[in-house]
Amino acid sequence: MREWENNFRRVEPYTPGEQPDFPDMIKLNTNECPYPPAPRTAEALRELALKSDRLRLYPDFRAGALAECLARRYGLAQEQLFVGVGSDDVLSVAFLTFFNTEKPVLFPDITYSFYDVWAELYRIPYERPALDGNFRIRREDYYRENGGIVLANPNAPTSIAEGLDFIEDILKHNRKSVVILDEAYVDFGAVSALPLLEKYENLLVVQTFSKSRAMAGMRIGYAMGHPSLIRAMNAVKYSINSYTMNYPSLVCGVCAVEDDAYFRECCAKIVRTRAWTGVQLAELGFSCLESSANFLFASHESVPAKQIFEALREKNIFVRYFDKPRIRNFLRITIGTDRQMQALIEALKQIVKQ
Amino acid sequence: MREWENNFRRVEPYTPGEQPDFPDMIKLNTNECPYPPAPRTAEALRELALKSDRLRLYPDFRAGALAECLARRYGLAQEQLFVGVGSDDVLSVAFLTFFNTEKPVLFPDITYSFYDVWAELYRIPYERPALDGNFRIRREDYYRENGGIVLANPNAPTSIAEGLDFIEDILKHNRKSVVILDEAYVDFGAVSALPLLEKYENLLVVQTFSKSRAMAGMRIGYAMGHPSLIRAMNAVKYSINSYTMNYPSLVCGVCAVEDDAYFRECCAKIVRTRAWTGVQLAELGFSCLESSANFLFASHESVPAKQIFEALREKNIFVRYFDKPRIRNFLRITIGTDRQMQALIEALKQIVKQ
Repeated sequence: MREWENNFRRVEPYTPGEQPDFPDMIKLNTNECPYPPAPRTAEALRELALKSDRLRLYPDFRAGALAECLARRYGLAQEQLFVGVGSDDVLSVAFLTFFNTEKPVLFPDITYSFYDVWAELYRIPYERPALDGNFRIRREDYYRENGGIVLANPNAPTSIAEGLDFIEDILKHNRKSVVILDEAYVDFGAVSALPLLEKYENLLVVQTFSKSRAMAGMRIGYAMGHPSLIRAMNAVKYSINSYTMNYPSLVCGVCAVEDDAYFRECCAKIVRTRAWTGVQLAELGFSCLESSANFLFASHESVPAKQIFEALREKNIFVRYFDKPRIRNFLRITIGTDRQMQALIEALKQIVKQ
Repeated sequence: MREWENNFRRVEPYTPGEQPDFPDMIKLNTNECPYPPAPRTAEALRELALKSDRLRLYPDFRAGALAECLARRYGLAQEQLFVGVGSDDVLSVAFLTFFNTEKPVLFPDITYSFYDVWAELYRIPYERPALDGNFRIRREDYYRENGGIVLANPNAPTSIAEGLDFIEDILKHNRKSVVILDEAYVDFGAVSALPLLEKYENLLVVQTFSKSRAMAGMRIGYAMGHPSLIRAMNAVKYSINSYTMNYPSLVCGVCAVEDDAYFRECCAKIVRTRAWTGVQLAELGFSCLESSANFLFASHESVPAKQIFEALREKNIFVRYFDKPRIRNFLRITIGTDRQMQALIEALKQIVKQ
């Protein structure tokens, strides 16, 4: 080993879902939206092409226009908005900003698998209380002293959402540390904790443009919370990279937020397709956890998940499989278009009835 | 103070140059390129508008196409390329990856003012050997044991470049720690340390699209080094945010690199304008350090820099002023178009001859 390599930071990085790129594939593995972004986005890109000279200048490092329009959309003050390069960036900055104590940060054993990666990277102590037998969060696990709490709601990859009472109960028991709610999937049927912001100054709600706003390719995420939380996050952000959001993101992000009718229509379509898919899957012998997200977490009564995963792959249909304790007999299936889900069901019929 | 605020990470963030936006302003304060990006970029944005559906998908987290075309351009293997959201992102990841020891990291007292911000943020010990009386780096200061070395070449805000022999001498004296060369301004007349990569596996060369490639608004930076360095940086990057570069950046970045003729022409124009501006400034009683960058670091024989800075502002001409020891009588003036520099000289004539 070369001497300088002793000083490398050792990490076990997060493994993103694969990004295959075949012409006829059906991609249901990374919870992207099956519909294009708001039409105004394309227009904004055309306008940007006409004034590409703008690209030579640094973007607004405060991401002001985007923060402002998000604030308006959610009835908040601009000082309550933090914008970053996808919700991963936002969450990473939040971990680095808020979790500087020897007490463990708490999040479930089964949840978004980036949380422990950030904790390891930043040397944050953490514990992972186990979900119960029905993959639900046990609220009592979060009553004890801690350095912070991180909950995804709806949770991933389980797709299950908890209600506002449940969230508020956890907040009531945690007046001393920052509680982060990762609401990446909230727009597909869960209730946002945003109304609790007024009462709980230690609550941070994180959302993303990558799912319900159909813009995973633009990398936009945001956090909403008390101005003192947002100020602290911005101070850390400006200590890492002053200009994180590029100009096209700032421009297209505003377009996406402004077209609220299109946004609602996309979400509603996905919810309808999810219901249809759930029924079809049940008929084929699958059981799905109750989903409030744009994906289903499904296991089959007799055929192992890994076998189904591989058989689907052969047919150019990509879903997500986690080879991990307790969930290795489940598939996480993103809700695509009606046609894509019909094709999935046809393929599964062949696979599970063999 | 609320109890959770005790756990906030305390930082003194970097202060970016202001980004004023007046219609008639002359903006010479953040070292942007005065010319638009490569014409193919605008075309790429038009094409993207036609297939905006692509934005719903995550981008390639390896940034493969961009890394590949940079590798080709610089005669390296793709495994020697790391791409990030501006060179600030790249440098921040490098600090976090390579500097994990109790020995101090070394960089000059006068240099890019983000280095000590990252060191503070990541709790990295550091020392700042003073530049000599002519604002040159004293190589002997970098002969002692250290946890890493970071040098900007050309240095900022001084604009002075050191030659390859100088850089290699420092590398010869440092076989145990990673040496980072920040070459943000190298394309304007300095010699890149890239040829030394073959001989020194602990050398990391960092460059950016924000200056010579006229794309500050797209946020693209990159590092070149031994595959073992790049692998370690990628592991850390994938532990922070899997998908950092958005799709438009990846597409437009490739366009910029491929049009090498345009790139060279822009750099040559800036170098010519720099020479002209230097002569004019000298006639007005300014002295400039010898610049190999797209800016001049200038002080006047009688009028204090701060006074000139403020008088220029009143005329809607923005340059950069650092109210810091040793350099508070200097102005950092970005090289703009010939017309912009003529306007600057006219304004300065009025200001210094009053």
